[in-house]
Amino acid sequence: MNRLFYQPNQAGMSKVEAAERTLREINPDVIFEIYNYNITTMDNFQHFMDRISHGGITDGKPVDLVLSCVDNFEARMTINTACNELGQSWIESGVSENAVSGHIQFIVPGDTSCFACAPPLVVATHTDEKTLKREGVCAASLPTTMAIVAGFLIQNTLKYLLKFGNVTYYLGYNALKDFFPMMAMKPNPECDDCNCRKQQEEFKKREALKPKPVVVEEVDTAPLHDENPFEIEIVSETTEEELKQAEGEKPQLTEGVTVAYTKPAKSATNVGLGKQRVIYDQVVTAVSKAIP
Amino acid sequence: MNRLFYQPNQAGMSKVEAAERTLREINPDVIFEIYNYNITTMDNFQHFMDRISHGGITDGKPVDLVLSCVDNFEARMTINTACNELGQSWIESGVSENAVSGHIQFIVPGDTSCFACAPPLVVATHTDEKTLKREGVCAASLPTTMAIVAGFLIQNTLKYLLKFGNVTYYLGYNALKDFFPMMAMKPNPECDDCNCRKQQEEFKKREALKPKPVVVEEVDTAPLHDENPFEIEIVSETTEEELKQAEGEKPQLTEGVTVAYTKPAKSATNVGLGKQRVIYDQVVTAVSKAIP
Repeated sequence: MNRLFYQPNQAGMSKVEAAERTLREINPDVIFEIYNYNITTMDNFQHFMDRISHGGITDGKPVDLVLSCVDNFEARMTINTACNELGQSWIESGVSENAVSGHIQFIVPGDTSCFACAPPLVVATHTDEKTLKREGVCAASLPTTMAIVAGFLIQNTLKYLLKFGNVTYYLGYNALKDFFPMMAMKPNPECDDCNCRKQQEEFKKREALKPKPVVVEEVDTAPLHDENPFEIEIVSETTEEELKQAEGEKPQLTEGVTVAYTKPAKSATNVGLGKQRVIYDQVVTAVSKAIP
Repeated sequence: MNRLFYQPNQAGMSKVEAAERTLREINPDVIFEIYNYNITTMDNFQHFMDRISHGGITDGKPVDLVLSCVDNFEARMTINTACNELGQSWIESGVSENAVSGHIQFIVPGDTSCFACAPPLVVATHTDEKTLKREGVCAASLPTTMAIVAGFLIQNTLKYLLKFGNVTYYLGYNALKDFFPMMAMKPNPECDDCNCRKQQEEFKKREALKPKPVVVEEVDTAPLHDENPFEIEIVSETTEEELKQAEGEKPQLTEGVTVAYTKPAKSATNVGLGKQRVIYDQVVTAVSKAIP
């Protein structure tokens, strides 16, 4: 994030200070509330939870959405813990250490997989991630990758808050190949986080209480196209005679069930080839119909 | 572009002025050269061409790449005309009027489709695009869509100039569905632009002169994995006996040609094998039909 905010004249400022300064210059009408602290300590975590549940635009109400732009798994797991406890929807985001891939993940506690449901290897194996980072070695950085992932994060936020388009559950970005994997994951019933499991139960209860949508079959008898200037018509793939010849014995079926195909009669000498010829003929017919 | 650059304190400035001011603040070490003019007029076009062919970092040399961020087709076609004449690679970019989709297109005159090879309908029909825009009606605007498309544009630029990853020829972006179509288009031999056709001829000549790459088969005899802690082994899907039973007559083949499969013996009672034979026959028939 710092690659997108910091300007040379902001040297010495903390990330949050620089971010607020830059954003306030872009839009002075936004109300900012900044805290420069480590959310993983006990006291700060309590304060962090309190601001999520009471820091919304309407006084004392929860925020609409939490956006995670942190650079380590411990902080991600902390946001996950807080959001699971509060039932708060949030969007996680990240860029890989080699700076050429990234992702966003929209998490709705109880409804979707949370960050602990399918944790990254380093979290699952309880490895101290500080041991993965080498002293004095800086991770690769490409502001373009960060700008694109930040763009996805905010676009998804706008779609969610302003209710347009499809809110994406997971969107990956591979910069080297311009590959964009997408998926949605259901929560893990055996998630390590007890609050995630609790949210899953509550989600199921809410879903069960919802009235079942009544499906009304729409009957539309009007033709889709009034005119047919190219004289396109639907013809059977097989002639009535061919159909009769190829027809075999029909099994005994219960009422209401019909067969779509029958087993060809055993006397046919080369059913496979026959069928193929028919298809070939049809292609020829279709082509000759298309070019009048 | 203006949605990404303009800040309230820049009210009254032209787009190019505001852009330069903002960019210079972000990185004072970059050398900017700005012109606030309409490139579609005769005089400006000549100056525009001159700056492309002599405005590179090395004095008097052409620029490395032209990035198009204009908002109308006339200006795009003008950039296309200039780049076709000069054989200059460029990347076109754009966001749709409804602001929820966009694209980038990398154009190498002679090698890829130029902007006139497969022109948009409004260009192909010689419609005056001013008639499409309604007086006083502003096109929709989403800075997120623009930021993402601008991110793609610059990421592709970095990949091209710094030679990493795959430079993408066309990348589309549909914000509502997070759909990212990709494609590469060959130039149109009947392109309206005579300089495009000329570049195509020159590209073919250059390709013909290139030495054919000599394919050296790499022989790597070292095992991929030295150890096999999980005792994984490759086993045949079919037992030796099954193989012998299923074996049929072998056709007469010229030296050096072997059969991968044989037709099962006709006496085979196994229905499965019988079916397989039919399919095999069909494949042969299909192949013989495909190669008359």
